[in-house]
Amino acid sequence: MKPIEYADSSPAVRAVYDDLRAVRKTDWINNFWKVIANEPATLKRTWESIKEVMAPGALDPLTKQMIYIAVSATNSCGYCIASHIAAARAAGMTDEMFGELMAVVGMANETNRLASGYEAEIDPEFKSA
Amino acid sequence: MKPIEYADSSPAVRAVYDDLRAVRKTDWINNFWKVIANEPATLKRTWESIKEVMAPGALDPLTKQMIYIAVSATNSCGYCIASHIAAARAAGMTDEMFGELMAVVGMANETNRLASGYEAEIDPEFKSA
Amino acid sequence: MKPIEYADSSPAVRAVYDDLRAVRKTDWINNFWKVIANEPATLKRTWESIKEVMAPGALDPLTKQMIYIAVSATNSCGYCIASHIAAARAAGMTDEMFGELMAVVGMANETNRLASGYEAEIDPEFKSA
Amino acid sequence: MKPIEYADSSPAVRAVYDDLRAVRKTDWINNFWKVIANEPATLKRTWESIKEVMAPGALDPLTKQMIYIAVSATNSCGYCIASHIAAARAAGMTDEMFGELMAVVGMANETNRLASGYEAEIDPEFKSA
Amino acid sequence: MKPIEYADSSPAVRAVYDDLRAVRKTDWINNFWKVIANEPATLKRTWESIKEVMAPGALDPLTKQMIYIAVSATNSCGYCIASHIAAARAAGMTDEMFGELMAVVGMANETNRLASGYEAEIDPEFKSA
Amino acid sequence: MKPIEYADSSPAVRAVYDDLRAVRKTDWINNFWKVIANEPATLKRTWESIKEVMAPGALDPLTKQMIYIAVSATNSCGYCIASHIAAARAAGMTDEMFGELMAVVGMANETNRLASGYEAEIDPEFKSA
Repeated sequence: MKPIEYADSSPAVRAVYDDLRAVRKTDWINNFWKVIANEPATLKRTWESIKEVMAPGALDPLTKQMIYIAVSATNSCGYCIASHIAAARAAGMTDEMFGELMAVVGMANETNRLASGYEAEIDPEFKSA
Repeated sequence: MKPIEYADSSPAVRAVYDDLRAVRKTDWINNFWKVIANEPATLKRTWESIKEVMAPGALDPLTKQMIYIAVSATNSCGYCIASHIAAARAAGMTDEMFGELMAVVGMANETNRLASGYEAEIDPEFKSA
Repeated sequence: MKPIEYADSSPAVRAVYDDLRAVRKTDWINNFWKVIANEPATLKRTWESIKEVMAPGALDPLTKQMIYIAVSATNSCGYCIASHIAAARAAGMTDEMFGELMAVVGMANETNRLASGYEAEIDPEFKSA
Repeated sequence: MKPIEYADSSPAVRAVYDDLRAVRKTDWINNFWKVIANEPATLKRTWESIKEVMAPGALDPLTKQMIYIAVSATNSCGYCIASHIAAARAAGMTDEMFGELMAVVGMANETNRLASGYEAEIDPEFKSA
Repeated sequence: MKPIEYADSSPAVRAVYDDLRAVRKTDWINNFWKVIANEPATLKRTWESIKEVMAPGALDPLTKQMIYIAVSATNSCGYCIASHIAAARAAGMTDEMFGELMAVVGMANETNRLASGYEAEIDPEFKSA
Repeated sequence: MKPIEYADSSPAVRAVYDDLRAVRKTDWINNFWKVIANEPATLKRTWESIKEVMAPGALDPLTKQMIYIAVSATNSCGYCIASHIAAARAAGMTDEMFGELMAVVGMANETNRLASGYEAEIDPEFKSA
């Protein structure tokens, strides 16, 4: 699907683009949004969900971006890794934080498979947790 | 593989168990360690790696536990989800924090597939990031 | 592994290529088949399985191609996404159908992780389903 | 997280439960919704998204349920497989349709890895698709 | 889907069951085959493929069973882990071999994500490999 | 993260590079190590773990490299597939062995999903295995 540029966007798409620009305080729109704009309902729903989910709350925006990277690296989504590393850096992620993040992601992916392969049964203590 | 209890452990396994108890400040050892203890080299290497990776650093222990949950939920590892939710709660994770964590994990898993399925190309801006 | 072209193919590989061309009504053979042709047994077995599985039955070919895209996007298989989008379009998939397909794929990947992370127990009603 | 029953629900949760009951034409609420109700914002957002995405459109509800099963089986999400098989059957899925669906899901998961492992390059013909 | 017992099987299913019993030199049939027998075409195709793929060749049967475990642990498929550990043990897998197998599976899952997260570019040397 | 060349490496990184060169009997260092060298603790821990896990033991180095490929193909990690195919070839993997390896990986990924989708229950016989 070809990316839909701002200049070529329908009113429904443009309304989302405008809100995205306002919330992010930049005119630049990355390719992810431009390709899903081919389905305006998906564009609108996804943007509204992301806006709600990534807003500051009990967790701060940087922590949320690092969680996003953790999931994207686990799924080997090249686009998502690149875009969320950029977003995390903009939110203050240092090289050291990225290094520790990836160290945890790596170990978690390792021990997930050790737990599965060794068929570890869930301790009763965790069930009442 | 049967879990290896402390009372039945070899000196090599017991040395790891003792360190694990000391670092965690509890005598209790959960099943994950008891099953991988069937391979003492894996037990020792995994524990030393986890001890190093999960220690406080540029990221605090609670953030690291939440990243662990994010990976484990993405991989649908039941044991790991249960054990790291318990560890995160012990480190201070509230219901609200867990709720926001899972909301980000859910959205990341969704948009990872939208990016792949729509074949979004990585913006040049992200490559110089 | 280098792709094996029709002109360079052994009799065993050529027999599969010929059947593939006849069934698909085109001389063109895409790279997937040319690379797995390095193992003629895999080529033959995979082609016969695909021919059987993708044939019209209780489900029509377009529905089957969309299921193929759903799996490939979930696995982030770039080659498979590209080739099955082409096949689905040839079978009649419109932009709207693709948009709805990806919307379902995205939501399913999201709720799969919510179900895992929240440790939802399977309702007894589903077991008798 | 404990499931939140209708009788114990807050007004925000109850409003979603009421809409869910009305749209689905049944008083029964399955566990997935009851556990994510611990985070009312996630409950509301997920339900509104599912309601929009699963509604009849260019694809009919049965096709959408089968796509959901394809993703859930690929991710090995036990809860999701069970609940969406039930939903697909309610929407008219026969044993034969399920059998063909799983046959496609199985082959797609196989060829996804053959394409990756053999490092198949995307044919230029697919890029212009 | 309910497992189909030998006594209740149709001629098409029974023919596969008989071959499976003869090849495996046991009357016992495990649940996997009994549930997919609900779709006789899937049963026959899957059995013929497994029989061909798992036969001794350039790789011995034990190595093939260990590869099967590696994939199944990576996918967290509980059924497959349990059944292929049993098959590997029957083919001669010792506790030490299993321990080393899982150690490699764990490390591979870890470094796969480090490679993705750090966006390692493929060395030109590997492309000419 | 930019790769760190040997000439630009800190003493901590250089110590790992030197050991890696000595163990592998080559001066060449592939990109994976150069990018994770941005986090020296990750570089050191990962290299020591790999050195221990991939050493000859109850399983020979070639078998271990093939298990690595099996996991990497299942996870669609392009970098890891390319680098471990090279390593396996250096350890003696023939085209036939690679072909059989991928055939098993493909079938395992297929039957993993059939087992999940058909909700096969683990046979009691496997539990006592």
